[in-house]
Amino acid sequence: MFKKKGEIIMSVYYIGVDLGGTKLYTALADEDGKIISGKKMPTEADKGEEVIINNITASIDSVLKDSGVAKKDVEKIGIGSPGPLSVRKGIIYETANMSWENVPILKIMEEKTGLPVKLENDANAAALGEKWFGAGKGIDDLIYITVSTGIGGGIIINKRAYHGFDGAAGEVGHMIIEPDGPQCGCGNYGCLESLASGTAIARDGKDLLESNQPETMIREMSNNNPDQVDALLIARAAKKGDKIAKDLYLKAGWYLGIGLANLINLFNPEMIVLGGGIMRDKELMDDSMQKSLEDRAISTSLELVNICKVELGDEAGVKGAIAVAMEERLLS
Amino acid sequence: MFKKKGEIIMSVYYIGVDLGGTKLYTALADEDGKIISGKKMPTEADKGEEVIINNITASIDSVLKDSGVAKKDVEKIGIGSPGPLSVRKGIIYETANMSWENVPILKIMEEKTGLPVKLENDANAAALGEKWFGAGKGIDDLIYITVSTGIGGGIIINKRAYHGFDGAAGEVGHMIIEPDGPQCGCGNYGCLESLASGTAIARDGKDLLESNQPETMIREMSNNNPDQVDALLIARAAKKGDKIAKDLYLKAGWYLGIGLANLINLFNPEMIVLGGGIMRDKELMDDSMQKSLEDRAISTSLELVNICKVELGDEAGVKGAIAVAMEERLLS
Repeated sequence: MFKKKGEIIMSVYYIGVDLGGTKLYTALADEDGKIISGKKMPTEADKGEEVIINNITASIDSVLKDSGVAKKDVEKIGIGSPGPLSVRKGIIYETANMSWENVPILKIMEEKTGLPVKLENDANAAALGEKWFGAGKGIDDLIYITVSTGIGGGIIINKRAYHGFDGAAGEVGHMIIEPDGPQCGCGNYGCLESLASGTAIARDGKDLLESNQPETMIREMSNNNPDQVDALLIARAAKKGDKIAKDLYLKAGWYLGIGLANLINLFNPEMIVLGGGIMRDKELMDDSMQKSLEDRAISTSLELVNICKVELGDEAGVKGAIAVAMEERLLS
Repeated sequence: MFKKKGEIIMSVYYIGVDLGGTKLYTALADEDGKIISGKKMPTEADKGEEVIINNITASIDSVLKDSGVAKKDVEKIGIGSPGPLSVRKGIIYETANMSWENVPILKIMEEKTGLPVKLENDANAAALGEKWFGAGKGIDDLIYITVSTGIGGGIIINKRAYHGFDGAAGEVGHMIIEPDGPQCGCGNYGCLESLASGTAIARDGKDLLESNQPETMIREMSNNNPDQVDALLIARAAKKGDKIAKDLYLKAGWYLGIGLANLINLFNPEMIVLGGGIMRDKELMDDSMQKSLEDRAISTSLELVNICKVELGDEAGVKGAIAVAMEERLLS
């Protein structure tokens, strides 16, 4: 930034709020998106709307205080939240595990802070975070996929989050790829999420214990208790060489590859960024994922797409929220 | 258009070329997209590049002559062609059943005509035609799907054809929805095209004849000759009340519904426009298609989307090519 003689250049700041069901992470960033101060605290999601809103407000006050930045120098607040929600209306309809409903969060937070607020769903926010500050820097069209308990996604087209007609676009986890497959949390059958998420891997592991499957470390490691079986435990068994545990990850990887192939055939994206807890063990899936990608994706499109891991890690949510706040600046 | 005193207002015209494997349909339109003159002729695709190019040029000369419009008053020529092709480079890589390869058609036609030329793949062109002149007038985000021998599609996002990174986006027919399903023409297994296209319906009908399936009119109507079984014959049998023929259409419709559900979950589109020969018999599929849509699509997104038939019919291709030529004007 060039200073003309005698001119006072005002710095501009942005605040990102990563609103999770358990944790709230708020950060204040400068005009390059660099985090200057951050505040992590419990969301206290079970205590209802007023407490949650007060916690968000307190976290904003905290990052302002810690950074010494005046509120008037903050240009916008971006909030990334689980949905379903309406970006356009600024309303969070509901959030799993949070006791609130139809919260006009944009209006509430604008009144509380006196600052402009922008709402985005968490997956789109994370996609924007990777696009502007992470693996996708310089890429205009990318698809972000998070594989954890569920499978979510954010689609970036021409540098912007693609919302569709009513903000519900990007439900990559609810693409049906096995019509007679297992039931998904959404009630449907054979969604990608029901086949390749952490929940799907854990379900298959529990089923193995309950059947009389040949011996697997999963049994010992879980004390033969299906309730103790989760995707992480299965990954640990796989890394110790357990063939059955390995196969569970390979099966999930094979389906994930089919899901990615569908996205490649439909979107011909420049990049697919994979995040979420399960992708920390992506190497357990690589062989089968690569196989189904090669068998199923249009080869010219597959050759061109860069499939990579997220770069922002634990900060993906809050950096995404900062990207939401900064979007106009970043696009200009 | 307002005329200032003494000012001569020039009218502007556009030419659309619908280049098919068998037929070539070229039309000249006014600045509202209204066709003033048209010329249909055989492509003579088997006679190679020079003959095909000469035929296109002759069709352009013909519509100019018939309309009495001077070439200098034509602003642009739009060409809709089967692919694979590169919109950006203006090259048709190849076309099934046409004996040419890597044809730099944009450059060739610009040299031949002295006019600016724009190339688009036929499905995107048809999607643009429906968006600007057909079922999608006033709609910004829509998905066009053509169900005939194969299944193709064009995705319109924010009024423009969505090309993806390298122009290969929109391959809706090669979305995998049954990984262990029948082999598709593309070599892959369980693509939507292998389950719900005219070819898929015909294949299932032929298989029925070859097995010792209970009696069906298909046997009599085809003289028990599998080579005579096609989707149209099966539709005729279904309309006469043949249960087995009806079931073949219902099966294809069920899969088509799953494909549409995936598109709805991913794109949250405002409209899906269905075209192609098989969709003339859409009513044979409606029950099962509706069932899988209701079971599989995210309900709020399903409620909002308008699923309808094309309006342009036989003129979809040429009107699409006109829309390609007119795109800048239409967007302004």
